[in-house]
Amino acid sequence: MSKTDFDLIVVGGGPGGYVAALRAAQLKLDVAVVESTHLGGICLNWGCIPTKALLRASEINHLLHDLGPFGFKAENVSYDFDKVVARSRAVSKQLAGGVGHLLKKAKVPVFDGRGKLAGVSRGRRMIEVSKDGKPVATLTARNVILATGARARVLPGIEPDGDLIWSYREAMVPKAMPKSLLVIGSGAIGIEFASFYRNMGAEVTVVEAMDRVLPVEDEEISALAHKAFEKQGMTILTGAKIGTLRKNGATVTVPVEVAGKTREITVEKVISAVGIVGNVEDIGLEGTKVEVDRTHIKVDGYCRTGEPNVYAIGDVAGAPWLAHKASHEGVLCAEHIAGREVHPMDVTNIPGCTYCRPQVASVGLTEAKAKATGRTLRVGKFPFMGNGKAIAMGEPEGLVKTVFDAETGELLGAHMIGAEVTEMIQGYVVAKTGELTEGELKETVFPHPTISESMHEAVLAAWGGALHF
Amino acid sequence: MSKTDFDLIVVGGGPGGYVAALRAAQLKLDVAVVESTHLGGICLNWGCIPTKALLRASEINHLLHDLGPFGFKAENVSYDFDKVVARSRAVSKQLAGGVGHLLKKAKVPVFDGRGKLAGVSRGRRMIEVSKDGKPVATLTARNVILATGARARVLPGIEPDGDLIWSYREAMVPKAMPKSLLVIGSGAIGIEFASFYRNMGAEVTVVEAMDRVLPVEDEEISALAHKAFEKQGMTILTGAKIGTLRKNGATVTVPVEVAGKTREITVEKVISAVGIVGNVEDIGLEGTKVEVDRTHIKVDGYCRTGEPNVYAIGDVAGAPWLAHKASHEGVLCAEHIAGREVHPMDVTNIPGCTYCRPQVASVGLTEAKAKATGRTLRVGKFPFMGNGKAIAMGEPEGLVKTVFDAETGELLGAHMIGAEVTEMIQGYVVAKTGELTEGELKETVFPHPTISESMHEAVLAAWGGALHF
Repeated sequence: MSKTDFDLIVVGGGPGGYVAALRAAQLKLDVAVVESTHLGGICLNWGCIPTKALLRASEINHLLHDLGPFGFKAENVSYDFDKVVARSRAVSKQLAGGVGHLLKKAKVPVFDGRGKLAGVSRGRRMIEVSKDGKPVATLTARNVILATGARARVLPGIEPDGDLIWSYREAMVPKAMPKSLLVIGSGAIGIEFASFYRNMGAEVTVVEAMDRVLPVEDEEISALAHKAFEKQGMTILTGAKIGTLRKNGATVTVPVEVAGKTREITVEKVISAVGIVGNVEDIGLEGTKVEVDRTHIKVDGYCRTGEPNVYAIGDVAGAPWLAHKASHEGVLCAEHIAGREVHPMDVTNIPGCTYCRPQVASVGLTEAKAKATGRTLRVGKFPFMGNGKAIAMGEPEGLVKTVFDAETGELLGAHMIGAEVTEMIQGYVVAKTGELTEGELKETVFPHPTISESMHEAVLAAWGGALHF
Repeated sequence: MSKTDFDLIVVGGGPGGYVAALRAAQLKLDVAVVESTHLGGICLNWGCIPTKALLRASEINHLLHDLGPFGFKAENVSYDFDKVVARSRAVSKQLAGGVGHLLKKAKVPVFDGRGKLAGVSRGRRMIEVSKDGKPVATLTARNVILATGARARVLPGIEPDGDLIWSYREAMVPKAMPKSLLVIGSGAIGIEFASFYRNMGAEVTVVEAMDRVLPVEDEEISALAHKAFEKQGMTILTGAKIGTLRKNGATVTVPVEVAGKTREITVEKVISAVGIVGNVEDIGLEGTKVEVDRTHIKVDGYCRTGEPNVYAIGDVAGAPWLAHKASHEGVLCAEHIAGREVHPMDVTNIPGCTYCRPQVASVGLTEAKAKATGRTLRVGKFPFMGNGKAIAMGEPEGLVKTVFDAETGELLGAHMIGAEVTEMIQGYVVAKTGELTEGELKETVFPHPTISESMHEAVLAAWGGALHF
């Protein structure tokens, strides 16, 4: 009979859950994972990773249709859409398999099923594991981490039907390349799909209820993204309201109201990307002190819920809904459970990336949010047009913007759009983590020729010393 | 009559010189530049910038011949070599023109000619400007910055002849694509050309006198680069000695001795990339207290030479011969002259990048050099094979390596090979500048999915907490 009592049980094997388990095992905790569907969660299986493989394909397609300026020529450029999708699935499978391997190496048992809090017995938390609705095991542990993740929000009238209306999931494994599509929602997920399909050649319309695309980003970055997407041929409708969708066999007609005027847009597919809801149902929260606020479990800086010894991390524990926030919480929470001294979660220092073309990355406060704190600001900007490497790469579209507290010199936020910025943003995160002064950032030697020099220039610009602009 | 007396004269308009002038002008110094050939120096005209444009082309060529795995097809892939070179020249021209524009906007006069120290008169430094050997102006200033740069070292018997034997300069503007070439020297310049020509389709042999390629990099990185280059079809000969070259009309035969055995290699072109020598001649150093050591001017941490009020920066002032070292010295030196408090130059925190495929980037001490200091080390490594984004991008070849002082937790060095690393290294430079502890680096949230997560994992690995390996 296999072991059923543990120091820690992690319910959910996504990036938060499996990382928590790996870290707990490193710290000599006796830990198990309960996962019903796939290790690696949405991120590895249906999110971050497979979309990056798709986006790589769309970048290639873009380049193949823009070879002239570089002195290249190619004829009969084509792609096999099935192969593009199959590669994305293979990458996903490889990495999700890797997670299983890591857990195995760390000797962390994985229970195949849905985990559910099932009361306390003799000071031990009980977890009921069920498969296809049938109980298959009862586990006990001193501590439980809930890492059950989230799922796409479904709006009435726009329910994914697997055919004409897609969620991120269908959008990732289409049977054929659609000629036209409409994306509802311009957050990171919506915009990444819009960028993928547009760069693969589809007619793409993006509809956003707010007044700008990528609404969590700095306004100036949103505006530049908007402009770049339109230049690529996307239609972007902001401040827009969707009417009742009409399915016409092979197409859908979507009434879109902007500024009191309604137009009808007919497309082959609709992608709904209107946010997510936490998976808080059927995990045994009833009758516990775990508090839920708008589908998310409330936690403190150490990921503690209101119920003793029950923690929650990742998407189910609230914004930002990012895999690296989840895995950071996983480490933090495991270390806290193991009795290590840890710093509580600081959500103001978590970068966000959107892998559209051009890429967008940011950390900390937008200029508007920083202003709203009442501080006096120093804002510095540097456009890629002044950067040698960006021009040499043929990527002159971009901007870096830094927002400092004018009095203390603290870097409050950094915002970037352009090539490679998702790989560059970590430099600002390191700076914020180490609480570098503006003086230290000015003194940092950024290598030449790199696009990252723009990060330096944006700091110099904030303090009146920009060199190349 | 135009003005001839200044607070500061900068001799040389390369990246050190023009940046020094721009910074001096910001600090309200009355400053002029003397430049004989081209603003922007070698870097913008014959170095960093045009090579990056060429390397971009070679990356594209590589991708065009490796489309299959991504699901793409293209027929009759070809390039127009003249266009590839012309684009590189156009990028260079645009940026060098930009420097002229920046100086003009900053109201910094540029004197066209060679500048030379010409004594002291009434406490003012005199600078003689000559054009085509004829004196055209005499300028005076309280302070002088020598930023005369460097040129390719020429070895006897391997003198560039503009036809069969090239320096970096001919290698950048070839009339036709050579079928075969041999590169002498495997430092950054030699390897970048080897990578460019190999990826454009030439047969390439690299000959290195030392026992490994990229000899200033960490040994492990050198070994991985070696392996990657060979996999791409380069022939690499280390510990090699060149004999007397024989020109045979349209080809050159190069005897190469390795481990006592000599082979003859016949190629269309030879590129000599055996280092540089400082431009210390004919700039009026005779009779001054400016000290020269093996073609480089000796300076202290504030770029002061032995002669009062005479400074030297950039390549002429010694290693590392990097544009960003030069421009950092330019800023530092201008600020020092303007009476600002500045930190002296710290050459241990200057990153170095090589834009070959795969890219190489590093900062600080190699493992061997760190060991040689007698410290106890903690070394962490993370291969790209464990990184989701690298796999999704189709770039699984790479490694990040961190070297820490085991006792103090100081990051002594970081070494990277793989896609995007030249844009990523700045994160470690920021960390070193801010003197982040290993604890702060561990706590930094790197965004997912990025290759930069490998930087985090390499830190975790050094301290026994690697998650994905």
